Amino acid sequence: MTYERVAAEDIDQVLAELPGWELRQDGKAITKTFKFRNFVQAFGFMTESALAAERLNHHPEWFNVYNRVDVTLTTHAVSALTSHDLKLAKAIDRAARSRSN
Amino acid sequence: MTYERVAAEDIDQVLAELPGWELRQDGKAITKTFKFRNFVQAFGFMTESALAAERLNHHPEWFNVYNRVDVTLTTHAVSALTSHDLKLAKAIDRAARSRSN
Repeated sequence: MTYERVAAEDIDQVLAELPGWELRQDGKAITKTFKFRNFVQAFGFMTESALAAERLNHHPEWFNVYNRVDVTLTTHAVSALTSHDLKLAKAIDRAARSRSN
Repeated sequence: MTYERVAAEDIDQVLAELPGWELRQDGKAITKTFKFRNFVQAFGFMTESALAAERLNHHPEWFNVYNRVDVTLTTHAVSALTSHDLKLAKAIDRAARSRSN
């Protein structure tokens, strides 16, 4: 698989298209925290995101406690932010929009 | 809901019944790391654990990256380890045993 790295000069534009996502301090990942009404909604969101991740063959790092899910996206294979992360971020945002918070 | 705290003098016996679980340094939580064959197996495990958690009305803190799941169990309401955590730990262990690693 080839990875298209996000060039440093493109980061601002990329983030403008991904509301709520922030660049991690090392510039190699993006992060976002999602909050839902309860655990069922949070885990429903995780399930929908997991299916998208598997379809993209690109998976999140994520932490969940009750109604909160902290998501980090990075491409381990190249230790950088790539187009795979952006695709997954959009899919995860779609999963969040379809749920109660 | 009432919570039965695990008394300090009972911790060793409790951990002996929960192989692989370790007491967090502050004594208020137990933790265990699970590894599976791939993301599908890891998320399958999380899904089975999530259903058990919802049934028990007691939820984990957990972090997942690809085939790894780090689980922390504590009872936030009383800031202590309680019988709820032990029940959930056993259910989570059952979910892990039924999956490939």
